[in-house]
Amino acid sequence: MPEKESAELSIIRLLKDAGGESVSGGDLSRLLGISRTAVWKHVKALRKAGYVVTACPSKGYSLSFEAKSSPMPFNAIEINSGLETAFVGKKIFFYPELDSTNAKAARLARDGADEGTVVIADFQSAGKGRIGRKWESPAGVNLYTSIILRPGIAPFDAQKLTIVMAVAVAEAIEKYCKKRPVVKWPNDILIASKKVAGILMEMDAEADHVNFIVAGIGVNINMNLSEMPPDIRRIATSLSEAFGQEISRIEFTRTLYSCVEKWYKKFSENGFPFVLTAWRSFFASEGKRVIVKGFNRTVEGICAGVDATGALLLRVDSGKVERIISGDVDHAGGV
Amino acid sequence: MPEKESAELSIIRLLKDAGGESVSGGDLSRLLGISRTAVWKHVKALRKAGYVVTACPSKGYSLSFEAKSSPMPFNAIEINSGLETAFVGKKIFFYPELDSTNAKAARLARDGADEGTVVIADFQSAGKGRIGRKWESPAGVNLYTSIILRPGIAPFDAQKLTIVMAVAVAEAIEKYCKKRPVVKWPNDILIASKKVAGILMEMDAEADHVNFIVAGIGVNINMNLSEMPPDIRRIATSLSEAFGQEISRIEFTRTLYSCVEKWYKKFSENGFPFVLTAWRSFFASEGKRVIVKGFNRTVEGICAGVDATGALLLRVDSGKVERIISGDVDHAGGV
Repeated sequence: MPEKESAELSIIRLLKDAGGESVSGGDLSRLLGISRTAVWKHVKALRKAGYVVTACPSKGYSLSFEAKSSPMPFNAIEINSGLETAFVGKKIFFYPELDSTNAKAARLARDGADEGTVVIADFQSAGKGRIGRKWESPAGVNLYTSIILRPGIAPFDAQKLTIVMAVAVAEAIEKYCKKRPVVKWPNDILIASKKVAGILMEMDAEADHVNFIVAGIGVNINMNLSEMPPDIRRIATSLSEAFGQEISRIEFTRTLYSCVEKWYKKFSENGFPFVLTAWRSFFASEGKRVIVKGFNRTVEGICAGVDATGALLLRVDSGKVERIISGDVDHAGGV
Repeated sequence: MPEKESAELSIIRLLKDAGGESVSGGDLSRLLGISRTAVWKHVKALRKAGYVVTACPSKGYSLSFEAKSSPMPFNAIEINSGLETAFVGKKIFFYPELDSTNAKAARLARDGADEGTVVIADFQSAGKGRIGRKWESPAGVNLYTSIILRPGIAPFDAQKLTIVMAVAVAEAIEKYCKKRPVVKWPNDILIASKKVAGILMEMDAEADHVNFIVAGIGVNINMNLSEMPPDIRRIATSLSEAFGQEISRIEFTRTLYSCVEKWYKKFSENGFPFVLTAWRSFFASEGKRVIVKGFNRTVEGICAGVDATGALLLRVDSGKVERIISGDVDHAGGV
């Protein structure tokens, strides 16, 4: 985390601990080991982020909790302070605007960022979907986050982690939504046949060893679909649309990180078959007729589930079962 | 290729075509579409690179071929001008010194460099071996090159490309050496049980699709082993040591790029089994007792070859055949 963000996090924690009472600038300066001028600069930044911090010359600084009736600002401080994970999201790089959280996370990972480090952007100017597609990333409403993982696996096994992430995202969504989400192989989460979340796994690897994986997760949280262009409206939904009310992005983000950590640990400790069982409970394509558009060919058949590596199985019309490791699945008639 | 390098390449070509006769600065300026001052700057750079270019005020510039008795300078111009490939090495980024050719090639690939673009360094300050190891990279004697490939495969199949590259490197080495080289699974080339070349494959991928692969190849060409530290001398050799005389790095590099292109095309057109047959002819571990140190475990057994994906097969003492996708092979008694 940038040093500046750490100091702000400390100030907010100290002011919250004071329960509305004032903390003197001198105390903050001493506790943080920074100058009183620096404290003042951080307070200004906190106000800009949406906190109501009162400065009283004789007493010091105090935090007003009145603003709590309106949503708390969506930032690293709020997400971090209520987070219950051991490593996912313990370091948050938060940006009001980024080209792509995956691109930023990859740069951080190459520079040695720890496993569990996350990047969040309120807005992405070049949000990435799979195979060079765009991910619609308006500001102020959704979650765009990328998580750095160092799983010590071979590239051979990378597709398994897509399945792990899909279970984690589906479980987080289920906690906020009365409708059970559906996973579309390999990496989309749907509600009522419309995309509510997507996962973009990118890796940096040697031929036999993954250096790091960046798990990019985009979740449509409070996006107002009526404001989106028709081609997006046709295929996408949001949690607020499905749930019928606004959802706290801060709380959803914390929940998501908890779910990611939980399933990532289960993958390491209990193995992939355990995760796959959970994944199948969100999977609705089995037994249905699907069309899979791959990089080189299109295959149609009855979905026969997924195999032990996470590959899609398709019973084609000749009766043969084909194993698909990449492609886009279209359901004949929706899921 | 940087614009400057192209202009120098053009000047060298024009002077070579003139067969020792002079070409006027005005003609060079007109043919290249650059100023006479720019021509003069390029000539100075060419001299610095080792070319004997004479400037005669009344006639112009001429290239002396006397220097040909000594080796031609090892640079992009010389390698490029005699290259017979369709795409591998058509664009050469040459550096007297780099941290790592693989790291540079990955940066170029992320910025969109074409397939076949290569990076060469005369010296690497942080040459990379597998899994974070160092690759000894002294200046002036060896080849350190990285080739950008965009094979349109899944990460699942990346290990196959290590095998493709191993065949290409082994074949290039065989052309210069009376002793047939041996490949040690997955990525070392040995002569008389000592390492003469290594391959480091790195990739940038989505879970189901490789964006690009950087094939890093290090070949000990004229390295004088008696000048190397004892721990290197014990395990490494060089082409000059095996062949008994100095080898032109320029010619070897051209040969290597031709072999890489040939086997990469065979992999695309004839499929992996075809490549694997060639690879097996360089493979000497089959039937021998080997110890494989993996990331998580060490397995010992009789090598039963490699399977159709390029994984190593090991018959352990229980009689079971284990499939190994990553690790270091040690032979009980050398190869």
